[in-house]
Amino acid sequence: MDALGYYNGKWGPLDEMTVPMNDRGCYFGDGVYDAACAANGIIFTIDEHVERFFDSAKLLEIELPYSREELKKILNEMVSHVDGKELLVYWQATRGTGRRNHAFSGGESNLWIMIKSMTIPDLSKKVKLITMEDTRFLHCNIKTINLIPNVIAAQRALESGCHEAIFHRGEIVTEASHSNVHIIKNGVFITHPVNNFILRGIARSRLALACIKLGIPLEEREFTLDELFSCDEVLTSSTTTFGLSADTIDGKPVGGKAAELLVKIQKEVMRDFSEATGYEWRTA
Amino acid sequence: MDALGYYNGKWGPLDEMTVPMNDRGCYFGDGVYDAACAANGIIFTIDEHVERFFDSAKLLEIELPYSREELKKILNEMVSHVDGKELLVYWQATRGTGRRNHAFSGGESNLWIMIKSMTIPDLSKKVKLITMEDTRFLHCNIKTINLIPNVIAAQRALESGCHEAIFHRGEIVTEASHSNVHIIKNGVFITHPVNNFILRGIARSRLALACIKLGIPLEEREFTLDELFSCDEVLTSSTTTFGLSADTIDGKPVGGKAAELLVKIQKEVMRDFSEATGYEWRTA
Repeated sequence: MDALGYYNGKWGPLDEMTVPMNDRGCYFGDGVYDAACAANGIIFTIDEHVERFFDSAKLLEIELPYSREELKKILNEMVSHVDGKELLVYWQATRGTGRRNHAFSGGESNLWIMIKSMTIPDLSKKVKLITMEDTRFLHCNIKTINLIPNVIAAQRALESGCHEAIFHRGEIVTEASHSNVHIIKNGVFITHPVNNFILRGIARSRLALACIKLGIPLEEREFTLDELFSCDEVLTSSTTTFGLSADTIDGKPVGGKAAELLVKIQKEVMRDFSEATGYEWRTA
Repeated sequence: MDALGYYNGKWGPLDEMTVPMNDRGCYFGDGVYDAACAANGIIFTIDEHVERFFDSAKLLEIELPYSREELKKILNEMVSHVDGKELLVYWQATRGTGRRNHAFSGGESNLWIMIKSMTIPDLSKKVKLITMEDTRFLHCNIKTINLIPNVIAAQRALESGCHEAIFHRGEIVTEASHSNVHIIKNGVFITHPVNNFILRGIARSRLALACIKLGIPLEEREFTLDELFSCDEVLTSSTTTFGLSADTIDGKPVGGKAAELLVKIQKEVMRDFSEATGYEWRTA
């Protein structure tokens, strides 16, 4: 099938799947999720994604009635039912089913899976970005389905003909609506430290690993809007985009001053993904 | 029936109702809601609740394909199908149905209704409260279904044997997990001003109206944790609780120093509700 939906063991075509109205995900957004990219039937960095999913669930005190290995088995099996060589594998756990009451209802959490085809981007293409004040809650380290500010920011980016909206808390750049943000400055790869203001991106980790492997200095530190606009290269990264570089932010030209280093990092990230999945990149 | 669920025109027993997995409410919490209390088939302050619902939808750019009058008609009709003299009437609008993509998918919003019986509290009973740092997003004026921090706070209150958790941003008290918070001090009713840190509670408005009617001075201003602990009376208010007073916060005794004024306000709020719905309060 072209897209699959799964709910607590039942699965079928995504657009036909239904869930109980009383699922706490439906009226509180009371759940956590993760998503990974699959190519040739292989889910890339599945261990890291499943680990982060268990971390998110633990932080929200959502009990998962399956082991990491059992979840991976289910995800791999569901991937095998979907057509398309490149797939987005999304799953979430919601805090059980019951009539609406803020405090926990008890009972087992629900497992949702949604799988659909995706297009792996051409990393040599430049993207355009906008900036927005970060008004989200202070739990951005947890991958929850409370995503209204992210939805609004992504919509603002789309309306501006841009790929992403970069959040900043005052002068400090945090991340983007569904990506992490990084800069290259004087040969150093700089990225926001892991704390409650950003999600610990798996693609972010792969970029960091690429830098380490290539001997490129890595700094995990806060950086400002001024640094974002004046640095040598700006990158966004996510599960579906790996590491895309920007040529404008809010319509102003950015980056393009460390092209060689940028391409080196991107090639290492591409090699990493190809090695794991056998995917052949369309451009280099 | 004892509890009703409604989704885009279809309705039935709440616990049997299902919704599409692709509803944006399910994976982004991308929706707004409101809830009102009905007694004897009459939804109290329905106009105010419907107006606020339309306001929330507008702030999130969710288009509602019905008028205020049409929505009221549907809500009133659904109330007539549910047993029980006192009902909680909950409804939400989610931003349409489609495969997961942050930016808006287009298409019509979905209307959900959930109606179940409720117990109107005895306002002469005292409640216990706890305090918690307010880590929510900066859009608390919009009644959205992104409610994870509220869920966690309500759970912490429950685990402490308390009615509610009061949020504070640093020293400033904002509101509670599903209530507004007010204090009485030197004969003045003090409540947080309406801005993006609190929800504009309808019960809050009825308490304010009661004060105006009774000639009790009203101050809409920020107040601190120190004032919360040292004031004469502490009240929480919500659609289902009207105006409950507290006798402890974090285990420390509070209030009880303006009992006469408190009872005067509560009696006016009770009269207000009885006049509209014919409900007879169990105690005075």
